[in-house]
Amino acid sequence: MAGKLRHYWRLADSIIGLVPNEQSLQIGEFELIERLQSVLRQNAGEVAPDTAGVLLGIGDDAAVLSAGPGPYLFTTDTMVDGVHFRSGEIPWFELGWKSIVSNQSDIAAMGGSPLHALVSLGVPAQHEPEQFEEMYRGMRAACEEFGGVIAGGDVVASPVLFVTVALTGSATLDEDGEPLIMRRDTAAPGDLVAVTGTLGGPAGGLRVLREGRSGAAAEALTRMHFLPRARVQAGQELVSFGIITAIDISDGLAGDLKKICLASDVGAVIDAQSVPMPVELTDEFGDEALQMALAGGEDYELLITAPFDVADRVLARMGRGVKHIGRIVDAPDSGPHVTVRDRLGNPVEVTGQSWDHLL
Amino acid sequence: MAGKLRHYWRLADSIIGLVPNEQSLQIGEFELIERLQSVLRQNAGEVAPDTAGVLLGIGDDAAVLSAGPGPYLFTTDTMVDGVHFRSGEIPWFELGWKSIVSNQSDIAAMGGSPLHALVSLGVPAQHEPEQFEEMYRGMRAACEEFGGVIAGGDVVASPVLFVTVALTGSATLDEDGEPLIMRRDTAAPGDLVAVTGTLGGPAGGLRVLREGRSGAAAEALTRMHFLPRARVQAGQELVSFGIITAIDISDGLAGDLKKICLASDVGAVIDAQSVPMPVELTDEFGDEALQMALAGGEDYELLITAPFDVADRVLARMGRGVKHIGRIVDAPDSGPHVTVRDRLGNPVEVTGQSWDHLL
Repeated sequence: MAGKLRHYWRLADSIIGLVPNEQSLQIGEFELIERLQSVLRQNAGEVAPDTAGVLLGIGDDAAVLSAGPGPYLFTTDTMVDGVHFRSGEIPWFELGWKSIVSNQSDIAAMGGSPLHALVSLGVPAQHEPEQFEEMYRGMRAACEEFGGVIAGGDVVASPVLFVTVALTGSATLDEDGEPLIMRRDTAAPGDLVAVTGTLGGPAGGLRVLREGRSGAAAEALTRMHFLPRARVQAGQELVSFGIITAIDISDGLAGDLKKICLASDVGAVIDAQSVPMPVELTDEFGDEALQMALAGGEDYELLITAPFDVADRVLARMGRGVKHIGRIVDAPDSGPHVTVRDRLGNPVEVTGQSWDHLL
Repeated sequence: MAGKLRHYWRLADSIIGLVPNEQSLQIGEFELIERLQSVLRQNAGEVAPDTAGVLLGIGDDAAVLSAGPGPYLFTTDTMVDGVHFRSGEIPWFELGWKSIVSNQSDIAAMGGSPLHALVSLGVPAQHEPEQFEEMYRGMRAACEEFGGVIAGGDVVASPVLFVTVALTGSATLDEDGEPLIMRRDTAAPGDLVAVTGTLGGPAGGLRVLREGRSGAAAEALTRMHFLPRARVQAGQELVSFGIITAIDISDGLAGDLKKICLASDVGAVIDAQSVPMPVELTDEFGDEALQMALAGGEDYELLITAPFDVADRVLARMGRGVKHIGRIVDAPDSGPHVTVRDRLGNPVEVTGQSWDHLL
C-alpha cells in the first residue's frame, strides 16, 4: 500500500453539473488540478512519505494516512475573499501561507504537531492559474516551516474565492505514552497569564496597508501581517514543561483570554505595561499601539495560564520567548471577565470593534 | 481528558474583522453557533463519547480524537450554492444530509468507517438560523445512519452559501491488523466490473425537479436525488471479501470508471443492458433512462473491479446487492478508455455533458 504519490488531487467530485466547473476558469479544472499537484509534488519530494505518514495520496477517494500512537488532533479554518482577506491586497503566496498557518497555530495551541492537511479551494472565474500556483507555494512553504504535509483536497467553482484547510495533528505524549494537551477550560484563580512573542504587529500591518504608510517600521509591520508564524515548537515545549492551559491569539489578546475565562469560569487581569509589543509598532503608532496589541488579532502567538511554580519554571527555561502579563482571578459575580489595568491600576478600556474604522 | 462535550463549536476565529461576522446574519455568529451546537449535542447524547472517539470536542483550538489502530482515512467535499445545489430548491435537511453523505461515500469507497467530521459553513445574510438548524439536523441524521460524528467546525460570513465537510475514517483491518483498502489504481485486464445498488435515480430526480414532473415515480426519483445513501456497510463487506479496487459513483458510471482506467492504465467495457436502474427511472423516462445511469452522477453507489474468482465469490455472497456490468480490458493504444456496448455489441455513446440542458 506504500507510497506512490502520483495522485495528489482527486478530480473534484462535482455534484451533478449544474454549472460545469470548466466554465469558471480560463483553463479547465483538470489542468488547474494538474498544475497545483505539480506545486505540491515538490513538497512531497522533499518529505519522505514514511516520515510524513502519507501511505496513499488523495487522487483516490480518500487519503490513507498514518497518525502514530495516541489520539489525533483535528481543526479547520476558512478564509473568504472580502471577509477575511482581500484578493487584490494580499499577495497570493502570503494568502496560501496564512491559510495554513492559522490551522497550524490551532495545533500548536494544543501542544501538538501538524500532520496532514486537505485544502478545499473555491475558484471564481476572474483569477489566473498562476495566482493559485503561487498560493500553493505559500502553503507548501508554511508546511516546510512549521510541519505537516498537504495530502490533497478539492477544487470547486464558486462565485467567491475561499480556502478551507482541514488539518490533523499528533499530540505530544509523555513518558508513559499518555497524551499531553493544553485546553481552554483548565485555568484556575491564582494562575499567571503569559504569552509567547509580541502582540499587535499584524494589526499594525493591516493599518499600515489601509493608510498607505511607508518606511522601515511600516514594512516590518506589513510583513508581520502577511507572514505570521505558527508557534508549533513553543507549544510543544510548553506542554512538555507542564502547561495545561493555552489558546492561540487569533482574535486578539483580550478576546482570546476571555474565551479561556468563559471556558474555565474565571476572571483575568492584564497588566497593560507588561504586554510585549514589537518596537516597530510603538515607533509607528505610539500610544495607539496598545489597543492593537490588546484587540488586534491574527498574532498567532500562544496565550497560556499556569500556577506560579509551573509558570516560573517555564519562564526560566524559555527566557524571553515567554512573557508574564497578568493573572487569573475568581470570576466576578457578573460572570467571566477580562480587565486590563495601566501602571497606576486604572482600568484600560479595550475598544473591541476598533478595526471597523479600517474598512 | 475524557468526555466533557460542552464545547462543540469553536468561536470562529475571524481573521482581523474586515467584516464582522455579526453583520451577515439577523442573529449574531455566537447565537448561531450556540443553536447549531444544540442540534449537534442531541447527536452526541446518543453516541457514547468513548464509542465515537471524541476525547475533547472542538470548542477548543482543535478536537482531540481517537482513531483506533492502523492508518486513518481523510477526505473532504465542498458544496457551493448555485454550483452544486440551489438553496431555493433543495430542502435544508437534505442539503445537510447530502453534504455528509458525499464524504461518507468516499470513506465507503475505501472500505472504511466514518469517524469524525468538521463542518465549515459559509453563511450569507439572507438565510434564517432555523434553516441552518434544519441543515444540521440532516447532517446529524446522516451520521446516525452511516456512521461518524460531527466533532465541530467553523462558521464564517460569506457572500455565498457553501458547506465544506472534512471527514476522517478508520480502515478495515485484516486478522493480522493490516489495513484492507480499495484503491483506484489496482484494476487489471480480465477483472469483472460490478456495482452496488441501482444507477441513474438521482439524475432522474434532478430532471423531475427541473421539468416539474409529478406522480409516484417522479416523487421516488426526487427522494433518490435528495437523500442518497452512503454504501459504508457494502464497502466494508467488499473489502473483507478481498476486493482491492473501488470508487464511489459521484460523477457518473462512465466518468468514474474512466478514473479507474486512468489510474490503472487499463480499458473497460460496459454491457449497457446489465446496468441496474430503478424501475421508477425506466417508467418515467423510458429510453432516456440509460444515459442517466451512465452519466448522471450523485449515485453514491460503489463501482468495483475484481478477478473472476474474487468477483464470483462476492456476487454469490452479496446476492442482488452487487451486479456484474462489464469487464476490464487492456488499454487501447489511444489510452485508457471506457466503451459501452448494447445487446448487439454496438457502441453506445455516453453523452457526458448531457446535464447542461437541465440548466
